[in-house]
Amino acid sequence: MKLQLALDLVNIPEGIELVKEVQEYIDIVEIGTPIIIDEGLHAVKAMKEAFPNLEVLADLKVMDAGGYEVMRASEAGADYITILGVSEDATITGAVEEARKRNRKILVDMIGVKDLETRAREVDALGVDYICVHTGYDLQAAGQNPFDDLRTIKRVVKSAKTAVAGGIKLKTLPEVVKAQPDIVIVGGGITGESNKRAVAQEMKQLIQQG
Amino acid sequence: MKLQLALDLVNIPEGIELVKEVQEYIDIVEIGTPIIIDEGLHAVKAMKEAFPNLEVLADLKVMDAGGYEVMRASEAGADYITILGVSEDATITGAVEEARKRNRKILVDMIGVKDLETRAREVDALGVDYICVHTGYDLQAAGQNPFDDLRTIKRVVKSAKTAVAGGIKLKTLPEVVKAQPDIVIVGGGITGESNKRAVAQEMKQLIQQG
Repeated sequence: MKLQLALDLVNIPEGIELVKEVQEYIDIVEIGTPIIIDEGLHAVKAMKEAFPNLEVLADLKVMDAGGYEVMRASEAGADYITILGVSEDATITGAVEEARKRNRKILVDMIGVKDLETRAREVDALGVDYICVHTGYDLQAAGQNPFDDLRTIKRVVKSAKTAVAGGIKLKTLPEVVKAQPDIVIVGGGITGESNKRAVAQEMKQLIQQG
Repeated sequence: MKLQLALDLVNIPEGIELVKEVQEYIDIVEIGTPIIIDEGLHAVKAMKEAFPNLEVLADLKVMDAGGYEVMRASEAGADYITILGVSEDATITGAVEEARKRNRKILVDMIGVKDLETRAREVDALGVDYICVHTGYDLQAAGQNPFDDLRTIKRVVKSAKTAVAGGIKLKTLPEVVKAQPDIVIVGGGITGESNKRAVAQEMKQLIQQG
């Protein structure tokens, strides 16, 4: 089980400072969609150069031109690229083919998918590396979380690995770990804490024990 | 009826050169998703500064954090911001509220929506400014186009204006104009031509006559 730190509301220098604090305890740094929108793939490149030993995920949430966007993100140094589960099968297939050529991983973000069970089975059959259940900001604000969704995909997905994101905190991590996802994605649960390093360390321990 | 030029596969200086050639004949410059992914909102800012008299659309294809992303894009100078029709109602509502405050327009991109008629009615009721039918690259490659979809939304949408995108060329423009969308979005149909200026001029004439 890997721990992924999602950076969303910081600029590139702030993001690098933040990762410095917790780098021993995380496996993957996510350049979140809001940073991509602000800075583009420059942020991915800067993070990979600053931390060559960490994996970097580019949260592009690709909806179209799957092969092209995976090519661009790979060139910038991304190890993982996100594609939306609500996109067309052709988009996901194009992304998977390009990622195979470049030895990168595709993570399909299931945000907004209405019939999770059916779509998870379909996406799994397209050969993606990870399927991620994700409660976005706008639904977290309405009190939702991704824990039931995680159990659903763990039950139906056969080939892909699994990931989970959406408001995970130290307090809720044990419940998440119990469901055994392959990647746990934490954003504000680390970046919003005053002692980020201690929280990241404790999360890493919970994950290693889990 | 407005003519929107979609820039996708160029960098910022190339995009500015391209717009210079055709600026008299277009109403809106779109900073396409591939440019946003490469360069972030810097591209929107640069384009607005270069052409203060043209409107600029930021094709963010927002899937989450609607209010936040509209705020960021507005600060960069975008007049229109795209939100995905497959996103949650809360995301669209957040975007609409922020756009109202800042006097910007929300264009909902219906790419990937399975039940177009139902979702168009729902999105219309959320108070968005434009609903856009859009056949993406990955489905254009499979021979699809957005012309039937345009007639569908023209029939069901009551308050929003309409837009259409996806492989429109000079040859197919008369069919599009006949359906009377409020915005016609053209990318490769101009940028892929050797005489961009002449094609843009002819398109503008067809639209003004239509």
